[in-house]
Order: sequence, then structure tokens, then C-alpha cells
Amino acid sequence: MIERYALSPMKDLWTLEAQYTRWLEVEVAALAALEELGRVPAGVSEGVRKKAKIDVQKIQGLEKEVGHDLVAFLWALEEEIGTEGRWLHFGLTSSDVKDTALSLILRDALEIILRKTRALKATLASLSLAYKETPILGRTHGQWAEPTTFGHKLLVWYDELLRVEARLQRAQHTISVGKLSGAVGTHAYFPPEAEEKALRSLGLKPCAVASQVISRDRHAEVVFALASCASFVEKVALEVRNLSRAEVGELEEGRPEGSSAMPHKRNPILSERLCGLARLARAAVGPLLESNALWHERDMSHSSVERIILPQVFLLVDYMLDRVDKLLRELQVFPDRMRERLSEALGLPFSEGLLLALVQAGMARREAHVLVADLSREAIQRGVPLCELARQNPRVRAYLSEEEIKAVFDLNAMLKRVAVSFDRVFHSRYNSCCDH
Amino acid sequence: MIERYALSPMKDLWTLEAQYTRWLEVEVAALAALEELGRVPAGVSEGVRKKAKIDVQKIQGLEKEVGHDLVAFLWALEEEIGTEGRWLHFGLTSSDVKDTALSLILRDALEIILRKTRALKATLASLSLAYKETPILGRTHGQWAEPTTFGHKLLVWYDELLRVEARLQRAQHTISVGKLSGAVGTHAYFPPEAEEKALRSLGLKPCAVASQVISRDRHAEVVFALASCASFVEKVALEVRNLSRAEVGELEEGRPEGSSAMPHKRNPILSERLCGLARLARAAVGPLLESNALWHERDMSHSSVERIILPQVFLLVDYMLDRVDKLLRELQVFPDRMRERLSEALGLPFSEGLLLALVQAGMARREAHVLVADLSREAIQRGVPLCELARQNPRVRAYLSEEEIKAVFDLNAMLKRVAVSFDRVFHSRYNSCCDH
Amino acid sequence: MIERYALSPMKDLWTLEAQYTRWLEVEVAALAALEELGRVPAGVSEGVRKKAKIDVQKIQGLEKEVGHDLVAFLWALEEEIGTEGRWLHFGLTSSDVKDTALSLILRDALEIILRKTRALKATLASLSLAYKETPILGRTHGQWAEPTTFGHKLLVWYDELLRVEARLQRAQHTISVGKLSGAVGTHAYFPPEAEEKALRSLGLKPCAVASQVISRDRHAEVVFALASCASFVEKVALEVRNLSRAEVGELEEGRPEGSSAMPHKRNPILSERLCGLARLARAAVGPLLESNALWHERDMSHSSVERIILPQVFLLVDYMLDRVDKLLRELQVFPDRMRERLSEALGLPFSEGLLLALVQAGMARREAHVLVADLSREAIQRGVPLCELARQNPRVRAYLSEEEIKAVFDLNAMLKRVAVSFDRVFHSRYNSCCDH
Amino acid sequence: MIERYALSPMKDLWTLEAQYTRWLEVEVAALAALEELGRVPAGVSEGVRKKAKIDVQKIQGLEKEVGHDLVAFLWALEEEIGTEGRWLHFGLTSSDVKDTALSLILRDALEIILRKTRALKATLASLSLAYKETPILGRTHGQWAEPTTFGHKLLVWYDELLRVEARLQRAQHTISVGKLSGAVGTHAYFPPEAEEKALRSLGLKPCAVASQVISRDRHAEVVFALASCASFVEKVALEVRNLSRAEVGELEEGRPEGSSAMPHKRNPILSERLCGLARLARAAVGPLLESNALWHERDMSHSSVERIILPQVFLLVDYMLDRVDKLLRELQVFPDRMRERLSEALGLPFSEGLLLALVQAGMARREAHVLVADLSREAIQRGVPLCELARQNPRVRAYLSEEEIKAVFDLNAMLKRVAVSFDRVFHSRYNSCCDH
Repeated sequence: MIERYALSPMKDLWTLEAQYTRWLEVEVAALAALEELGRVPAGVSEGVRKKAKIDVQKIQGLEKEVGHDLVAFLWALEEEIGTEGRWLHFGLTSSDVKDTALSLILRDALEIILRKTRALKATLASLSLAYKETPILGRTHGQWAEPTTFGHKLLVWYDELLRVEARLQRAQHTISVGKLSGAVGTHAYFPPEAEEKALRSLGLKPCAVASQVISRDRHAEVVFALASCASFVEKVALEVRNLSRAEVGELEEGRPEGSSAMPHKRNPILSERLCGLARLARAAVGPLLESNALWHERDMSHSSVERIILPQVFLLVDYMLDRVDKLLRELQVFPDRMRERLSEALGLPFSEGLLLALVQAGMARREAHVLVADLSREAIQRGVPLCELARQNPRVRAYLSEEEIKAVFDLNAMLKRVAVSFDRVFHSRYNSCCDH
Repeated sequence: MIERYALSPMKDLWTLEAQYTRWLEVEVAALAALEELGRVPAGVSEGVRKKAKIDVQKIQGLEKEVGHDLVAFLWALEEEIGTEGRWLHFGLTSSDVKDTALSLILRDALEIILRKTRALKATLASLSLAYKETPILGRTHGQWAEPTTFGHKLLVWYDELLRVEARLQRAQHTISVGKLSGAVGTHAYFPPEAEEKALRSLGLKPCAVASQVISRDRHAEVVFALASCASFVEKVALEVRNLSRAEVGELEEGRPEGSSAMPHKRNPILSERLCGLARLARAAVGPLLESNALWHERDMSHSSVERIILPQVFLLVDYMLDRVDKLLRELQVFPDRMRERLSEALGLPFSEGLLLALVQAGMARREAHVLVADLSREAIQRGVPLCELARQNPRVRAYLSEEEIKAVFDLNAMLKRVAVSFDRVFHSRYNSCCDH
Repeated sequence: MIERYALSPMKDLWTLEAQYTRWLEVEVAALAALEELGRVPAGVSEGVRKKAKIDVQKIQGLEKEVGHDLVAFLWALEEEIGTEGRWLHFGLTSSDVKDTALSLILRDALEIILRKTRALKATLASLSLAYKETPILGRTHGQWAEPTTFGHKLLVWYDELLRVEARLQRAQHTISVGKLSGAVGTHAYFPPEAEEKALRSLGLKPCAVASQVISRDRHAEVVFALASCASFVEKVALEVRNLSRAEVGELEEGRPEGSSAMPHKRNPILSERLCGLARLARAAVGPLLESNALWHERDMSHSSVERIILPQVFLLVDYMLDRVDKLLRELQVFPDRMRERLSEALGLPFSEGLLLALVQAGMARREAHVLVADLSREAIQRGVPLCELARQNPRVRAYLSEEEIKAVFDLNAMLKRVAVSFDRVFHSRYNSCCDH
Repeated sequence: MIERYALSPMKDLWTLEAQYTRWLEVEVAALAALEELGRVPAGVSEGVRKKAKIDVQKIQGLEKEVGHDLVAFLWALEEEIGTEGRWLHFGLTSSDVKDTALSLILRDALEIILRKTRALKATLASLSLAYKETPILGRTHGQWAEPTTFGHKLLVWYDELLRVEARLQRAQHTISVGKLSGAVGTHAYFPPEAEEKALRSLGLKPCAVASQVISRDRHAEVVFALASCASFVEKVALEVRNLSRAEVGELEEGRPEGSSAMPHKRNPILSERLCGLARLARAAVGPLLESNALWHERDMSHSSVERIILPQVFLLVDYMLDRVDKLLRELQVFPDRMRERLSEALGLPFSEGLLLALVQAGMARREAHVLVADLSREAIQRGVPLCELARQNPRVRAYLSEEEIKAVFDLNAMLKRVAVSFDRVFHSRYNSCCDH
């Protein structure tokens, strides 16, 4: 059923054919390096490169016979290549080829992901600037808090995305390694110089040291970076769902879904779907971490885990990034509804301002807190704005003039420093003092 | 029951008193910064610093009354400080104080962890050098593979620990941020300049932008770094368990545990315990990732999660590092048993060498593979060394001389390149070409 | 920090002293059974019972010396009891005692949990009946759906709680087993008859067969039952949060929390806390399942996992049940706001009725669906009730009379079958045809 | 990549075509029930049944247009059926159809699983009886413990499988429910009598009460039962891996895998693969539990989770059961190696017997424990059997005669009660006193 969430070019990286092609690339690179060092007769690697052809069905047939996928792959090639084919895999073990090929796939898959995070950054940057000064009620605990701007929300996401991107880049660096050091990592039959040459030609670095396999802590880091990316998408999607609620109505998906029963429905199902997919991405971290500690120089228990989970989590996160970008680009934003909600809040979002004005004027904080809380409750019960009640309250008036009270409820004053966050995020002079 | 696994100084960071002390630190730093900017009367911060005293029981008593821990904390302080106390918390929201204080705790807790990873690195470096040339059977799939050295195993761990350390350091950087920007992150009542000053005095940087809280993707990164550390410890412990098995006997814990029933037992229970604890550390990543996407400017659902999981995972990983270091330092290593096991393996660990010698001499790889596999099976069934069978086999002898066969089974030749991995790991000139 | 969430009597089950007391209970029961079978001199078990005293500090001191908790426990007892003490633990292994004692604790802990689910059932039953006919907008995808009653929501929870309770009861049955069959489960030195007698006296059954330990699939089932209970509490708490949102306002926690900064706040933090705790309970299932497959007759890796996770998950779920019951009992319900929201919905919650009336009258479903969707959109855009628009629409009127249209928008008609669900849940004659 | 692990008939249950077929089944059953109650003209259901054809591509094309899978499904059918088609879905909402259809799939999928657990039970029963008296060293903590029989190990698994089967059966019961009660579960437009009739015809029971959807606690129970099954398979596979270790050699997979590099290898990769897959099955429980608490009457976040995870976990567990059965049936068992290992253990597996004999003869337990531990250490260090050392030790001889010492080391005596466990498991008279 994952077909539904599989996009090109990501899905093309994970086909059997693509995998065999990577294996061949690694085998040929290894041969070429041995040849350069004079360990294999000149011309062999070129000959292999020319004659080798990937025949998926033939390999799968042989695999059924011999019960080992890489041995089947080698036999299929050897048949086609003829006598020179015997040099294939010289001094290597299956994991040398498979793990190095997997690194190539993961590196390229992360490149696709990073291309999408870059696009998403552009979307978020431009949206956040467009709505930089659009007032909206901030909400905490599902309750009215203080005013903010819709652009500020978007900026918070942009800023998190910078960290997600950094994690993905580090993960890409971490996984851009290969390993051609033989059955237990001792380079018994494959010299380190050849390993370095071959991997350099593939754009990888050698692991400084390895057992039979590349250590799985690297793969776990990759999956965590993806899970962190998924968690970011979830955050955006959850907010879209919350602001699209019928009673809030400040946002609407570009193409909300109807219902088979209720023709009036406009459901934010894309956002809901993204929230669900984040759960799956999260759940991939555990099995990867479980697959790090293997027996001795390696056991195979990690293999089936990776075969299923790695393509899955890459496909899902790739899909999520694609869709969240679309979600944001097509998002319907209703600034009027945002202002409306703000004005329905009876001035309560300014209660802290009143408290602080009283404190500044000399009232004890605790006393001021209780007083403003009482007035707020009254505002809700009677449906009278807090500003009005404050003006009428003798204890407030003992400290504050009408002018001072009015100043407390000034929306523009409250939002004037939002610009600072934008400066911090987008302008370099702030980048040294702040952290993304 | 966690008491059993709680060590000082880590556990002292997480007491209620330590938490309140951090809160006070943040409140005072904020006051001092406001004062410097002329927003609070001169001398207030100094006055507060002098008069403020943390009275845990009083705060807890007030919390029961008011139902809010930070409000209770403020009321308790205000009572003691008197009229100047009203300036406390000016322009701040609870999360400003709590999240910033939590960052201080996490930063310091990571410092303790990093001190232990440094110690562990020293232990592993010295052990790996001590056993650099001690031969041992490499094993894959629980089966004999090819020879390696015990030092090489230790070097693989050392190398992974470098990556774990890097993750912990990055996580420490990621979490060394504070946030004093008010109820919804707009700096409505607390100016950004004061935020920067106050946080600088605490050794933190401000988040470039924030909602009510510091984004939880940062905390999730911290916990993943810890889980990755725990997974590393598990890897070491699992190998100790495997090499301590009665039938292998190449290692023994320094102080194996007996049994209440069977007086002969010497169980590697420390290693087993470490494997168990890794499962718990792993399981902490999920709840943290789940707690990243909050409603609007924040909801409280992350709070109970962190209150329990954060101290727990820090205590456990701190304990694990402590104990794995002890485990390694006190480990009983039996090089004689290692050599014994190698010599019992009937030369099978050299089968690849024989295969490659035949290929080099011109035999097709597939043919050579099948031939050596047959000889290996015969070796096991008849209990005759592979070397012997090879010497007697006419098909082998058609390609290889007695001398060449003998060379295949030379242990020293197989291990001669192990030194390269040590050079790569420990000497800088390799660090540019390899990756840890 | 878990202290904050630990309630009596649950927490008293998990103290060290309580644990040692259970161990002693098991040892004495075993002795008594052996005595009854004539394998131990008469009077020994009575003597031991009288002289044995649990001295926690002494045991812990001895544990540091000998490095084994149960051996330390035995030595401490033997010292106090004197020569008869040598019969203690006769033919048993540590796991016999510890695992059987753990079963006793788990059985009793589940009893406490079940007492709370029973109380919660009573709360939900009475609330659901009280609000059986209180209309409220049903919402799907955060959007207005069709009307339901608040009691119907509560009934859905009650019904789920029945399944949770059944899972807990089955788990209690599953874990009410002991095991006194020695080091590898062969009864080598402890006869099966004695096992049966001893366990019967403790209210347990013997495992039909065992390795050194009681199989951990049983413990995993217990923890899943608890996680399922936590997930149920989360469902209730999430709904309370959603219906308490400022824009909805149909519910409010009995004692919402204020804010240190914003005096007007009334935050549903108890519900939020419960949602957070559910994440932790969920995360306990994985480590338990990981701890089922042990090496051979057992390894110790499960032990540290259980020592931490079992008390934790029991304490949390116990706390959650306690608090959700309180949450529900003190919940402020605002039927007027519920009606208000319904009436603000412009008749859209009846759109399916209109669709079906058209179909019934002969219009093709697809055509009717598109038509009603268009009218609904118009209703929202123009702020005109759907009923009105339908009456004015010629295509509608070609199929439906004014009377028929009016009938579609009859709230009472829509809710008339809610009673059936109540009958099904509460009356036995339906229980055979339905499933809870 | 999951294709590799997908077997028929399980995989056929999860195709798109199969899913649409189930939807149609539910729609037709609903129509027939309405018809029976006179709510839909006679003959409609029969007409629909005859004319309806599933055209996957057409539906998918319409889905792209309308953005709703079930609406597309209805439109496609309506086109084919003509005017009677308008009665399809009368009074239903999408979830009525999808959730009920999903229950049918899950019920049938569990039936396939249960067929395999039955086959596996037969395999384990016959193997356990075949090796009932085959002695093997029991091992705890990876160390020699006491003798047991290979059949006893198999019996422990058989017994756990009984509990797994019970969980699967209960889960099947739990999920054999449907729900045809409309958009918010109030039966507003679909009468409860029709629901009961329709579901009965499908072999399901109605949920006593429901929101828009069948509560996801039911689905979570299903997935836990599968995870518990996977954990059982892991236990078996882990033991096969451990007993197949080169140094143990008591078992070998029927068709161990070779290595591309090392021709001598015979790797237990099937067991390793099964261990890996168990990690994935486990990881499915979390996302399901996360998807239980939905917003109000439902949100869609569970949908993408289930679409991916449900087929995946069923396919994996189905595959695992298939392969573990094959693994066991083809397993190579080497009783001679088992005896050999036992005899190499220097009599240490009998140390508890010696301890108990001394206690029985009057020595204090602590003293006896220390004495036998010392002798055991000496046995290992000197390579002399414990029996011999005991005979020569004056402190032992002060309590025990040569005859009595000899009796301690009698293998048959130690194993004589293994039969009791078999009786308990296989014979009903024990089933009342024991628990599986």
C-alpha cells in the first residue's frame, strides 16, 4: 500500500535493479583500484565494465539455487563476462559491496531529501515575510494567550527547519563512507590503498576502521535525522489542523476533502495524513538502534530490518516533504478571521500588560496577579472587555491613569518586537549571538 | 528502583532543590539585565540575589494551594524578599524560566556525560593498543570467520565512541540556548537586548525565534545522542557476553556473579544489565519525538514526559558509561584461549585465502568457491585441517604448489594490515582521508 | 521525579522492603510444602516464619559484599534463624523466588488498577446517563459533522473501558503463576508436588513448564494491558482538551490552572498531563517485548528493564486512572454552549439528511451530493442557513416539499436512536448480539 | 522490498482489488438489510449485486478527480449500475464501509495466522516428544547451568505458543465487529436493526456503540497479538542461533547460507533474519496505540498509519510463522554434540546437587555454598572433574560418603522429572492445576 506514498525519483533509488547497478559500480571501482596498484591484470576492469549487464531475473533465479543474493549476482556476471570475470570480488566480502552500495543509495536519497528541504525553506521564508505583520491570537493550552503574528508562527517553523536540515546534512556526511576491508575488516586480502582509491572514485571516504560491516550507529543517525524531519512536518500539519477547526477557521487546506455522507464537509485530510505518517517515521528509529549491537564481527539480524525500514522511511519522509510544501503553498489564509478572533477575546490577551503596569506602578506582584485574574473572570462571565472593567476598578485606578490603561491594550505596541526575530533569523549579524 | 542506578554528581542535578536554584538563577539574570537597561530600579537584582532563599517545603506547600509550581515559587520568594520582590519575573512567562533552567541542567548533565566518554576513550585507546597484535578468531553469524586481533575489536569501539562523542557535543551545542521572550515569543514585555544580556551571563545563546517554549526538536536530539551512546555501550557489553560464553571463554568479567543455586557459576551479569538498560534508553526517543509537535504556541503534554524521561535517561546513560568503563578496565582477557580457539578451527578461517590463490592462479571463481566449500565440509566432517586436505587435493595442486598452499595459512600475513586501521584512527595524517 | 505521580497503596507494593517480604513469603511457602511432603524436618517452616525478620540495611550491606541480592537475602536470614536456616531455598534457584514474588506483586498491582477501573466505570456510567440526551455537535476532522449527545461520547468511553478491563483481567490471570522448578526448570531438586502445594498456598498456579524463569511473554501482556488503559485515558483527556478550547468552550476542567504571566488563563493542564503520561506508558511495551527472547534457559538482560519499567508503568497508570476519574467527576459541562455551537452551524450538520431525502425522492446520488455540497458552500459564504437555501433552490424543490425539507432539519429526529446504543451497552439482552 | 517476505494467500488479502471487493460486500449487505426492513425498494440489492463490477483503474482515475477514495468507488459503481445505484451507501458514511471491510480482512488474516500457529504447534509437539529424553546442557547467562533435555526446550516453546494462540484468538474475537451507524455513530439515517442484520450476514457483530469509527483500541490489540507472536518466533530463532554457534554446534539450520568470501561458512541466516523481523513487528505496536485517541468523533491520522503498518505486520508475521515452521522441521539436531558438551563440563552442572547434599547432611548453607564454589573454581583451573575433587576433600567427606557423592552426579536422576512437565502440558488432568 506504500505505492500510494512513493514518489520519483526517490522510489527509483530503491528498486532491485538500482541496487544491483550499485553493486556493480562498487565491484568495478574495486577492480579498477586493484588494477592501478598492479594487483589485477591491466584492462580487466574496463573489460568487466563493458561486458557486465544486470539481468534481474537471472540473478533472482540463481539466488533461489544458491541461497545467497550476492553470490548469485557474481555468478550471473561471471557467466556473461567469461574468464576475466573471476577477478570480480577479489579480496572482498559481500558486506564490502552491499554496505558501500547502501551508502551510495543513502547519500543520494539524502540529497533528494535535502533538495526538498531547500524548497520548503524558500516556501516558508516567503510566507513568513508575507504574513510578518498579520496579527493572530497566540494560543497556549488551547486557550487564548497573547497576540502574535501569523508570520511569526511561520518563522518558528523556518527556524526549526534549519536545524532539521543541519541534522540531515550531518547524517549525509556520516553515511558517506564505504568499506572494502574484507571479511572481518583487517584488509587481509584487499589493501587499504586500493580501498581508498576505489572509494574516492565513488565519492566516499573509507571508514577508519570496521568490522565486517559499516557500523550501524551511522544508519541510526540517518534515520533519526529523517524522524526529526517527519516530526517537523507533523508540527506544521498539526497547526494547520488546529487553525482549520470549524470554530477557528483561520486557515483552510487548498483542497480540503469532502465526505461520502456529509456533502458540507471540507476536511483537512492532507494535514491529518501527515500527522499519521510522522508516527511511522518515528517508529523506525527503534529498530535501527536495536540493530547496532551485532554479534562479534557481525550478524545478519540488521539486514531484514534495513531492507524494509530504510526504503520505507525515505519514501515516507520524501512524500511528507513534498506534500507539506504543497500544503503551505496552497494554504488558504484568512487574516480577517484572525483579526475577528482577536477582537472576540475581550481584551484578555492583554492581561499580562495590565499586571505588569500595576507592578511597575508599585503594586505587589501577587496582589496584582489576583486582581487581574478576578477582573478577567468577570470579563468572561459578563461579556465585558477587560479594558472596560479595569477602567472602572478603583484598585486599578489607584495605580493607573486612563491613559496608562489604554496603552496596555495597544495591539501594535505588543507586536512591535516581532521584527527582531525576523532580523535574528534572516540577517547574519544576529547569527553569531543567536542559535537556530 | 532507579536509585540503584543513580550516581553523583549526575543525580544531584535533578533534585527539586537544584531545579529551584536554577530557576532563581534565571530570574536574577533576567532582573540584572533589565536593570542594566534601566528598566528596573538600580540595586533590585542585587537585593533579590541576597535575600532570596530556596525553601523547598514552603514552595511545595504553596503549590498545593495555587496549583502552579512556578507561581508558588514566585510567591515564596516574594514573601521573603519583600517589596522589591514584585520585580521578579517581570515580563517573563513560566516557560522562559523553566525552559532556560532546563537548558542549563541539560548542558551540565551533558558535560558530565562527556567527561565519562573522555575517560572511556582513554580506556579503550590504551586497551586497543595493548591488544593490537593479540590474535583472535573473528566471528560472523556466530560462526568462525577470519582471524583478527582483539585490539582491532577494541579499535572499532573506540572509533564508534568518537562519533557518539560528536553527537553528544552537537546536542550540547543545540541545547545551550535559552529563551526570555514572553508568553508567545514576541518579546512583548521583555526586550530582546535584555534576553541576550541575561542569557550571555548564564552561558547560553538566545533562540533566534521561539513560541512560548524552546522547540522540543532540540530536546529530542539530546535524547537521541544519549540513546546512541547507550547503543554503543550495549555493543561492547554484548561482545563481552559473547566472548565470555562457557564454550568460548576468551573473556571474563572482573567480578562475575555467582548463583544462589549453582555454586560453580560465574555470570557476566554486569554486561547483561548494560544490555537491558540500553533498551530503556532507546525507548526514550519516541516519547520525546512525540512531544515536539505541540498545539499552537504550546501545550503542556511534553512536560510530564520530560519530567520523568529526562532525568531517567541521563541517570541511566551516566551509569552505563561508568560501569562499562569499569567493565573494560577490570576485564579478564585470556590470549591463550584466543589462540587455542584459533588453532581448533581446522584452518577454515583461511578458506578465502585458498579461494583467492586459486582464482589468482587462473581457476574460475565459481569453480574455486565450490571446491573450497567442499574441502571445508570435509575438514569438519573428518576433523582434518583444511591445509592438509588442500595439499592432498589434485585439483588444488593443479594450480598451487605446496609452498603456495602453506603461504595461504600464514596467520601473521593475514594480520599484517591491522596496523593500518590503528594508524588511520590515531594519526592525523589519515584523518583527512578517512571518516570516523 | 516520579514521586510526583506516585500514589499509595500502589507505591507501597514496590518498595525494597515489600519486595523482600514477598521473597520471604515464597521461601516459607516452599519450605512448608517440602515439610508436608516429608522432605524437610517437621517444624522447620514454622521456626523460620517466626524467626525471620527483614532487615533491609543488613541485606544491602551483604549484597555489596557478595554481589548477589538473593544470596545476600539468604545469608541475612540464615544469620538470624540459625541452624534451621540452612533449609531455606532448598532446591530452589533465585528466579524461583524472585519470579514468583514478582507475580504476587503484579497480581496485587493489577488488583489496585482494577479497583480503579471499576470506580471509573461507575463514574462514566452515571455521567453518560446524565447527559444521554444533551445535544452536542459531533465533529470529525476538527470540522462540524452531525449532532450527537454528550452522553453518547461518554458511552463510547464506557464501552472501551469494558475492553480495557477485560484485558487487565486476562493479564492478571496470565501473570497469576509461579515457578518453583529450579535452575533450568527440570524440578531436579524441587518436586512438582511441592511446587503445586506451595504456589496454591500463595494463590498462584504453577507454570505448566518453564526454563529458569517465568516466560516474559506474560509480563509483556501485562504491560500491553496497562498501555491500552493509558491509551484509553489519553482518549478521554484529549477530548476534554478539545472541548475546552477557548473557541469551543463546551467543557472546562474543574480546576484549570492559571499562568504566571497571563492572569486570565484557565488551562486544562491535568488533561494535557494525562496525554503526556500516555506516551510513557506506550513506550514501555517495546522494552518488555525485547526482553522476552533470552539466551538459552535465561539471561539477565530483562532484569534491569523490569526493575525500572514495571514500577514506573504501574505507578503512572494508577495515577492516570485516579486523575481521570477526578477529572470526570469535577468536569464542568456547559450544555448551553453545546446548543449554541450547534445553532451556529447554519444547519450544515443536517446536510446528509438533505442528500438522502433527494436520493429517496429519486435524484441520482452523485448529482444530489454535488448539489448539497454547493448549497453548503453557499451557506458558509453568505452566512445563510442551509435549510433556507434548500427551500429556495428550484432543483431541490423539484424533489422535496417545504414540509419534507423542514423534516430534514429536525434535531430530535436525528437523535432518537441514540437510546439504542445505551440499551445495547447497559442491557444484557443486547449483549449477545453486540460486542463491547 | 517487502515483496521478498510476502506469501500467498496472505498477500492477496491486501490488494486494492480485494479491498474494493470487501467494500462492495459491505455495501450490498447493508442494502439487503434495508431492503428486508422495507426501507429500500425490493430487488435493489440483488440488482446491485449483479451489475456491480470492480474496475480498479476506473476507481483510481475518479479518485484523482474527486480526491476521496470511497466517493470515487461509489461513483464508479453508480455509473455501471444505473438508477438503482443511487441507493448504494444509503444512510452510511465512509467509515461504516471501510472499517467494517477492514474488520473482515483482519478477521480473515488472523485466520491465516491461526492456521499457521496450529501447524507450528504440531511441529513443536512432535519435535518435543522426539527429543523428550535427549540430554543437553542447560545454560544461563551464557554459562553452563544444569542438564535439561532438548525436548524440554521445545516444550517451553510449545507452551508459549499456546498463549500466543490464545492472544490471537481473542484479538480475532475483538476485531470481528462491524459498524453501520453513520457519521457520528448515532444511527441517524441507518437503523440499528439493519446494522445487526447486515453484519450478521457478514459474520460480524455490531459494536455496541461507536463514534464515526470502530475504536482503535481493538486494532491495537490485534497488532500486539501479532507482535507477541513475532517475539515468540524470535525466541526460537535466537536459540537456534545460539546452539548453532561454531563452538557449540548442537544444532544447524537445514540449509545454512554460505559466504561470498569464505567458502567454509554455514551461517544460520534464516534465524538471524527472523530475529530482525521481530524488531519490526514490535515497532508496529506504538503507532497503533498512538492512533487510538482521535479528535472528537474521529480524525484521519490513523488512516495512513494503518494503510502501511497493518498489511506489513501481517505479511511479516505470516512469513515468520511459515519460516520458523520450516526452520524447525528441517533443523539438524546433533544429540552426540549435546552429550559431548555435557561431558566436557567437568561435572559443574551438578554443583547444586553437591551443595544440597551437604546442607541435607547438616552443613550450613552459606558454608556449603562457599566450599562448593571453591571446589568448582579449582575444577576449572586444574581441569579436574568436580566429582573427583569432592571425593578428595576432607570437609566434604566429613558429611558425605563416596556413594552419596556419586549419587549427586547421576545424570538420569537429574532428568527424571522432566516427564512431569510433558504430562502437565499435554494431559488434561494437569490443565486445571497449571497454567499455560
